[in-house]
Amino acid sequence: MKIDDNFYMRLAIDEAWKHQLLTYPNPAVGCVIVKNQRLLAVEAHKEAGMPHAEVNALKTAYLKDNPNSILKTKNSSFDIHQYLLQNHNGFFNDCEIYVTLEPCNHIGKTPSCANLLKELKPKRVIISVKDPNKQATGGLETLKNENIDVTLGILEKDGLNLILPFISWQNKSCIFFKMAQTLNGSIDGKISSNRALAYVHTLRDKIDLLVIGGNSVRIDKPTLDTRYIQGKNPDIFIYSKNKVFDTNIPLFKIPNRKVLISDDLYKLLDYKFIMIEGVYNLLDKLKERIDFFILIISPKIRKGQNALNEIDLDFEIIHENFIGKDKIVFLKRK
Amino acid sequence: MKIDDNFYMRLAIDEAWKHQLLTYPNPAVGCVIVKNQRLLAVEAHKEAGMPHAEVNALKTAYLKDNPNSILKTKNSSFDIHQYLLQNHNGFFNDCEIYVTLEPCNHIGKTPSCANLLKELKPKRVIISVKDPNKQATGGLETLKNENIDVTLGILEKDGLNLILPFISWQNKSCIFFKMAQTLNGSIDGKISSNRALAYVHTLRDKIDLLVIGGNSVRIDKPTLDTRYIQGKNPDIFIYSKNKVFDTNIPLFKIPNRKVLISDDLYKLLDYKFIMIEGVYNLLDKLKERIDFFILIISPKIRKGQNALNEIDLDFEIIHENFIGKDKIVFLKRK
Repeated sequence: MKIDDNFYMRLAIDEAWKHQLLTYPNPAVGCVIVKNQRLLAVEAHKEAGMPHAEVNALKTAYLKDNPNSILKTKNSSFDIHQYLLQNHNGFFNDCEIYVTLEPCNHIGKTPSCANLLKELKPKRVIISVKDPNKQATGGLETLKNENIDVTLGILEKDGLNLILPFISWQNKSCIFFKMAQTLNGSIDGKISSNRALAYVHTLRDKIDLLVIGGNSVRIDKPTLDTRYIQGKNPDIFIYSKNKVFDTNIPLFKIPNRKVLISDDLYKLLDYKFIMIEGVYNLLDKLKERIDFFILIISPKIRKGQNALNEIDLDFEIIHENFIGKDKIVFLKRK
Repeated sequence: MKIDDNFYMRLAIDEAWKHQLLTYPNPAVGCVIVKNQRLLAVEAHKEAGMPHAEVNALKTAYLKDNPNSILKTKNSSFDIHQYLLQNHNGFFNDCEIYVTLEPCNHIGKTPSCANLLKELKPKRVIISVKDPNKQATGGLETLKNENIDVTLGILEKDGLNLILPFISWQNKSCIFFKMAQTLNGSIDGKISSNRALAYVHTLRDKIDLLVIGGNSVRIDKPTLDTRYIQGKNPDIFIYSKNKVFDTNIPLFKIPNRKVLISDDLYKLLDYKFIMIEGVYNLLDKLKERIDFFILIISPKIRKGQNALNEIDLDFEIIHENFIGKDKIVFLKRK
């Protein structure tokens, strides 16, 4: 295997995907630092308000060669920025910094990464894609104006797939469909491991709205909360023509939760980040609305209800990973 | 992400998997070389008779710092061994060499890797698993006897999964089941891309025997050759109680091919490396015989026949990869 720009950018992209969706409303971003061919850091942005990928990677890289530096006690973006600005002492001048997204140029919840990099003067900055956020873009120019060697467009297609949710958040609502099944497509009974369920609860904690089909509410009586992780419980949109439900089921008893019952999808536009939980018939109805599809596959074969309906959809796999023993596949419609 | 022994061993294991099964009768092996934290090589063994993973990696690493060396013209294992023995000049003394399987200690089709490493005196050799082949084992002791620092057991579970086919070849026949389906488990019509079909033909070229169900022969009339890659056409075992077939179909017309028609699975033991191509009913019948299961998943949803039968199996995903746009998943029965 060639150990080249693509190799290091792939590491950065894969690291970023580990935190995909969990960085909302920020993009998932990964960063790799190589100093004279020594791989020093593979890091990612983990959650809004926490340090950007570049800052995490700069800290890790610096600590690799300065393990006793007081930098290891600094955790906020502001403190790490300050420390590195004052103490870098040319450490990064022979570093190549791979970042999946153009370093931000504006001061938001954290200081600007482009400004920090400008001062640290790395040998080269390699970027997969430009920032589609008009407020944050310009990092590329900031670096070029300092005569830093910048390469743009490495693994660009993968870099764009990585920020697909972010682009949706920017433009309009981001709507994704989540489904769990066995290897053979069976959807009956308890399918996912507890670890996968905890992951779904983590997603519920991040989203603004959860969409579910009326039949599912009537038959399965789900609570649709985040009890596995004690998170925030999202508002619920029950997609149903028939508005009559037994409101004594737990779903309706969660405090501070709004429950909408409607078949008017226009109402989704009041929310930014929306997960639909359902199976193929709901997917068939909503397929034109979704930005991407998450399939959690449990590695077993089971007898059970399947997707023997009229659905006919083509996807591209944009990423896959494991949640414990289960697989998670991120799919984009073709 | 921590950049430690596990990180580099993971690179070696993933690289080896790219050539899984294609190295028959040799094990799939990967090797990574790190010199003073500089990642110099990520290589694998590709085919029996070609250089072992260690030799490929040693060559790549040496050429990284000596790009004009005549070594780049050497391709046979013997020539690379010879060159490195005479010209290494201590190059590897500060290298850490990660290898997924204990370096071989015997001279087979290629010279012994342990003997080569012994002379090159790397700083450290990190091994995932010991060689289960009694003829080839002993590499660990050869290295330790030269006071080379050896670490054994890094990602051992993954290292063992990697050589699961090899262990089967060693002990008895290796039998695996191959199936293709859509995301939702549909098996009707043409499912896989041409690239995935070419991969299946590559597998057919490597195996000794291909097992297929009698109904599949009667209904689909498959040729079961290797026309996509112009390879060797395997012998065929038609698993069927009813021995009457139309022998005018192309399957029976392939030169130098034996076709057995039998329901006596004992006959499989005459062969070392066996692929079963079929769907769930054949899997259900043969599930106790298979060492692992390969599922090729095309990222689309289609109406079609599915696995709504009595099958009930639990797997562990031991590896996954892409063949073009399709997924390939290697599964081990739990």
